[in-house]
Amino acid sequence: MNTKTIAIVGASGYSGEELVRLLLAHPHADLVAVTSRQNAGQTLAQVFPKFGNHPRARSLRFSEPAAEVLAKAAQVIFLALPHGIAGEYAAPLLQLGSQVIDLSADFRLRSPAVYQEFYAHKHPAPELLGQAVYGLPEVYRPRIKGASLVASPGCYPTSILLPTLPLLKAGLVKSTGIIADSLSGVSGAGRKTELDYLFVECNESVRPYAVPKHRHLSEIEQELSLAAGTPVTMQFTPHLIPVNRGILSTIYLAPEQHFADAKAMNELGERISACYRNAYGDEPFVRLLDTTTLPDTKNVAGTNVIEIAWRLDPRTGRLVVMSAEDNLVKGASGQAVQSMNIMCGFPETAGLV
Amino acid sequence: MNTKTIAIVGASGYSGEELVRLLLAHPHADLVAVTSRQNAGQTLAQVFPKFGNHPRARSLRFSEPAAEVLAKAAQVIFLALPHGIAGEYAAPLLQLGSQVIDLSADFRLRSPAVYQEFYAHKHPAPELLGQAVYGLPEVYRPRIKGASLVASPGCYPTSILLPTLPLLKAGLVKSTGIIADSLSGVSGAGRKTELDYLFVECNESVRPYAVPKHRHLSEIEQELSLAAGTPVTMQFTPHLIPVNRGILSTIYLAPEQHFADAKAMNELGERISACYRNAYGDEPFVRLLDTTTLPDTKNVAGTNVIEIAWRLDPRTGRLVVMSAEDNLVKGASGQAVQSMNIMCGFPETAGLV
Amino acid sequence: MNTKTIAIVGASGYSGEELVRLLLAHPHADLVAVTSRQNAGQTLAQVFPKFGNHPRARSLRFSEPAAEVLAKAAQVIFLALPHGIAGEYAAPLLQLGSQVIDLSADFRLRSPAVYQEFYAHKHPAPELLGQAVYGLPEVYRPRIKGASLVASPGCYPTSILLPTLPLLKAGLVKSTGIIADSLSGVSGAGRKTELDYLFVECNESVRPYAVPKHRHLSEIEQELSLAAGTPVTMQFTPHLIPVNRGILSTIYLAPEQHFADAKAMNELGERISACYRNAYGDEPFVRLLDTTTLPDTKNVAGTNVIEIAWRLDPRTGRLVVMSAEDNLVKGASGQAVQSMNIMCGFPETAGLV
Amino acid sequence: MNTKTIAIVGASGYSGEELVRLLLAHPHADLVAVTSRQNAGQTLAQVFPKFGNHPRARSLRFSEPAAEVLAKAAQVIFLALPHGIAGEYAAPLLQLGSQVIDLSADFRLRSPAVYQEFYAHKHPAPELLGQAVYGLPEVYRPRIKGASLVASPGCYPTSILLPTLPLLKAGLVKSTGIIADSLSGVSGAGRKTELDYLFVECNESVRPYAVPKHRHLSEIEQELSLAAGTPVTMQFTPHLIPVNRGILSTIYLAPEQHFADAKAMNELGERISACYRNAYGDEPFVRLLDTTTLPDTKNVAGTNVIEIAWRLDPRTGRLVVMSAEDNLVKGASGQAVQSMNIMCGFPETAGLV
Repeated sequence: MNTKTIAIVGASGYSGEELVRLLLAHPHADLVAVTSRQNAGQTLAQVFPKFGNHPRARSLRFSEPAAEVLAKAAQVIFLALPHGIAGEYAAPLLQLGSQVIDLSADFRLRSPAVYQEFYAHKHPAPELLGQAVYGLPEVYRPRIKGASLVASPGCYPTSILLPTLPLLKAGLVKSTGIIADSLSGVSGAGRKTELDYLFVECNESVRPYAVPKHRHLSEIEQELSLAAGTPVTMQFTPHLIPVNRGILSTIYLAPEQHFADAKAMNELGERISACYRNAYGDEPFVRLLDTTTLPDTKNVAGTNVIEIAWRLDPRTGRLVVMSAEDNLVKGASGQAVQSMNIMCGFPETAGLV
Repeated sequence: MNTKTIAIVGASGYSGEELVRLLLAHPHADLVAVTSRQNAGQTLAQVFPKFGNHPRARSLRFSEPAAEVLAKAAQVIFLALPHGIAGEYAAPLLQLGSQVIDLSADFRLRSPAVYQEFYAHKHPAPELLGQAVYGLPEVYRPRIKGASLVASPGCYPTSILLPTLPLLKAGLVKSTGIIADSLSGVSGAGRKTELDYLFVECNESVRPYAVPKHRHLSEIEQELSLAAGTPVTMQFTPHLIPVNRGILSTIYLAPEQHFADAKAMNELGERISACYRNAYGDEPFVRLLDTTTLPDTKNVAGTNVIEIAWRLDPRTGRLVVMSAEDNLVKGASGQAVQSMNIMCGFPETAGLV
Repeated sequence: MNTKTIAIVGASGYSGEELVRLLLAHPHADLVAVTSRQNAGQTLAQVFPKFGNHPRARSLRFSEPAAEVLAKAAQVIFLALPHGIAGEYAAPLLQLGSQVIDLSADFRLRSPAVYQEFYAHKHPAPELLGQAVYGLPEVYRPRIKGASLVASPGCYPTSILLPTLPLLKAGLVKSTGIIADSLSGVSGAGRKTELDYLFVECNESVRPYAVPKHRHLSEIEQELSLAAGTPVTMQFTPHLIPVNRGILSTIYLAPEQHFADAKAMNELGERISACYRNAYGDEPFVRLLDTTTLPDTKNVAGTNVIEIAWRLDPRTGRLVVMSAEDNLVKGASGQAVQSMNIMCGFPETAGLV
Repeated sequence: MNTKTIAIVGASGYSGEELVRLLLAHPHADLVAVTSRQNAGQTLAQVFPKFGNHPRARSLRFSEPAAEVLAKAAQVIFLALPHGIAGEYAAPLLQLGSQVIDLSADFRLRSPAVYQEFYAHKHPAPELLGQAVYGLPEVYRPRIKGASLVASPGCYPTSILLPTLPLLKAGLVKSTGIIADSLSGVSGAGRKTELDYLFVECNESVRPYAVPKHRHLSEIEQELSLAAGTPVTMQFTPHLIPVNRGILSTIYLAPEQHFADAKAMNELGERISACYRNAYGDEPFVRLLDTTTLPDTKNVAGTNVIEIAWRLDPRTGRLVVMSAEDNLVKGASGQAVQSMNIMCGFPETAGLV
């Protein structure tokens, strides 16, 4: 099978580092350029000693990000940049014919107005929103196949959307009153040298943040609304917990159908089971847990897998759905590589198992 | 001021160890007996080297727990035993005239039937339920004062009840649809040598458990119902996170009053503020956070303080309340000592600041 | 290339689990049997949910370990059992023609007397010691090639021997006065449900143990003595630190040559550099760090790589050598798979990169 | 007993925060001023929510550090500033009659030349070195009593000097060949927003640093030399480990006396025991462990206690001494308060138990 030349713009953050890890080992990827202002001139191995045994990591040097050079060198370009900046980089790369996979929030929202509401600045390239595809392969696989611009989803949205979308689409749960309570490892904050993310400030600490309006709500609600066929407003509370990697989301849903007795509960349970099997039974990166197992981030760390489990609560009439993923893999770089595999016609699991 | 003689039955678990720490340093407590089958014959300092610089810890030896001996030696007796066993110990001690503070679940529930539903065995001493007082000082202070048997609340219940009860009592929030999502440090599981609590199984791991019916629901719902004046059924999801100490609870509530515009939201906010100030403004162990700060377990670790913050969400119409406490202190042993202070007429903060 | 059928005896500990992880993904390994008394009857996926997306893990069930069955089913058999027990299993398997790779200490020592001194019981199969090869590929590669019984080295020994052996062999450092100070993650203690390894006992804790005579001293000194050509007695202090994986060893050596001035120091430095390059320049799993980088366990976690760095101290005249490895990979299961690759004629890095 | 007014200059770092914690609860201290450029204008409670229940923390605001104002307001002034800067602050404060306790390295060394060698800049106030007392109470108690300027020791030096000095003074161990291998929690690096100290960079990581010449060597060797009566050069390797607090030091010493047989070993052991008992038997903050216990940082965290244990190794002829302390308490702020207690005539344990 053929190979594509690849560049990573902004390869010194945690998502960028994880892209490097995955793409150095990818059988169809030829990593030819990595950019970083602060590390320009240094090799990958110098900046990340852990890659030191890979020959490419010893030879490939970080460069300044220049669109013409990148577009000439690489067929597929990953943007691992802050929102606002990513949007500006995409346009020239697309014009020069590159395929672009953006890990920032810049192309995830269909509405520039919603973008401005949640990100507090004008959208940097609203004219591109029409062609961007939301890079959730389990949902948008056919559209990703033909895309030139993929907006890879956020870490929290992936952990909430994959468990919720099939139930909403099947009409099994109400579109109102949805609550998601999420716990994220510290790498989710990025490689920022801020007081809040020092070891001593995070270790032996658990805390909510961005209550009640985290930015990721915008893309979660957009996708829930599309699935429900009606506007969805939901509650979302992120928490920071002292692990390097992992997101655990607990989602509270109201089934459309009541289940007052055991028989009704069994019937509803079977419909939920069937719904998930239909949606994900053949998906290589979704693990549907059985009724005796609950998700645990340690079982997905370092992998592109999301674990999903659910429980009906006959006392409250609610459905509790739980998921676990590695925020840097299925929640970011692994999912982006999965989209690349689809875009380029590679086996979807290439470089990811 | 006078001093009371104190015994701890079951002093080798984490709650027992924390009682030892607090009572060795307590100005009005004279720790005269500690019991533990497995450590009988050893001094406190041998079992817990960290207490080795305290003279009493070098001389006091663990003994077998015998009611007559204990009741003769000590005026106040703490039970830090598993549920079921604690209940059996209490009766003879009370008959012999001791004051008993039980840290287990055995005397927290008013109904032996509910106890049996949640703990899966018959109540060991139903005849004592009538005289037991639920040891939440901020709520039951006057009754604790005259009590001979205090049932100290569970760690999760404390973290959920203190933020929720005043709002329910004041009629500010609905008694239906309450959801609490809680994150607990591993010491909450006790000092059990089980695979699930090994370092390697907990570190870099986050996981829900006991979904959807954790035992603590029984006492939470009992107290919520009393406050609401109507039976309350609620949703509760505990999670295990890799910290030694701390519980962070995020509670989703529906205000009785809608707040469609900024003015209504401000008014409701002021009523909530006033409600909390009335309830806890003078409480030494409740810290009401301002609108710029959110709870963090690291700010309460090792202390008897619970932090409470809240946010109204105009998008969903919900009230989100968050609390942080040390599960071993305000969630267990510190609160038990607080009750002892009240029972014995000591200053309520003695030994706790 | 051909494939070998593989069995793992004792697959439910941390080394066994890591063998499963490596062998399920190995291009030339066909994992056909896993044994465990406690998990017999369950599938790999049931015991280790993290392997749940691998078809073999969903079909392969743990069985009771019976030599005849195993030897018939598998060509290569890994023993991940406690010392003493492993030795008893090996003999029948070898007689039935299997190739055996033992991860316990049972076949690492050439002398049954030294074994008895350090392990406090008689050697279970002294007649096999003659044919066992110490499975340190960088040192014994030719002998591993033809071996039927490989004794895979301990985690501490690997971290100390690889940095020290070349210097001793080259006569660059004295064979006396060697001190190794090692820091190990908690998985090194195995999956034991003992109080000492509970999360709460290990987190926020650092402690030495087994001072001054840890069992691994026996194999370290055996190999150092062989390299030095004279009996070596050394000092070794292990410490337990709160990480899941990783060993960091700091080794204090006395150079044979004094280096009073900068010129002598440079010359000695160049000889040390050359010594390491000669020994490990082409080794796929040894990373020789440059003069600006020091080892860090996070850079080797999950990999079969050992990092080595060194510094000459002109103030004390000493050479300080430091290494980092993953105790479960290069320190145990990865190294065992590396030996398997050599024994079976597979590429040495197969399944390990 | 009387009370002293206290100021802390540089109260926003980890040592400063720990001084605040200790002094707010100190029975003879009246904390009247805290300074911090970055936090000027904010209350203690705003910067450190954990102190929010203390009335003084809600009223006392951070100010800019101005010598005249401070000296007028406070009788005792703690400097928790970076080296170089602390030295400049001390002179005017001393001239204005304040008692100064400096937690930086600026007054620990007797020789400005050694200071310049290790800190790479000229000493800021060499004229004050003569009057500064090294604030190790167990060694310099009488001199601290009359001092106006105390140089509180570094965290590593405290952990190495206290276990080593008595043996050197008694002539029990050689002054040559000393090696100390130390493991420090991340708070030892200070509250610096640098990449190396981010949670994700420290968690699941263990690494040596500053090999082979850490700055603390200068004061360790100064004090060892004074105890030995001859210049001492030693080896010291610090490591960073993922805990918030704690230093574990393992020190390798050569006894003057050989101990070839059990009798000689027993005799030497008794001399070592007696030496430690003489030195520290009555010290409130030194815990001499027995022959069955080894130091553990979790047993000293949050306290001013240092644990010391030792083992003779008949195989190597060496003495291995191990210590554990909280780097922010006995290794910094607690020890500084201990010196304050001595300087001011308070009970030495006031505010520290």
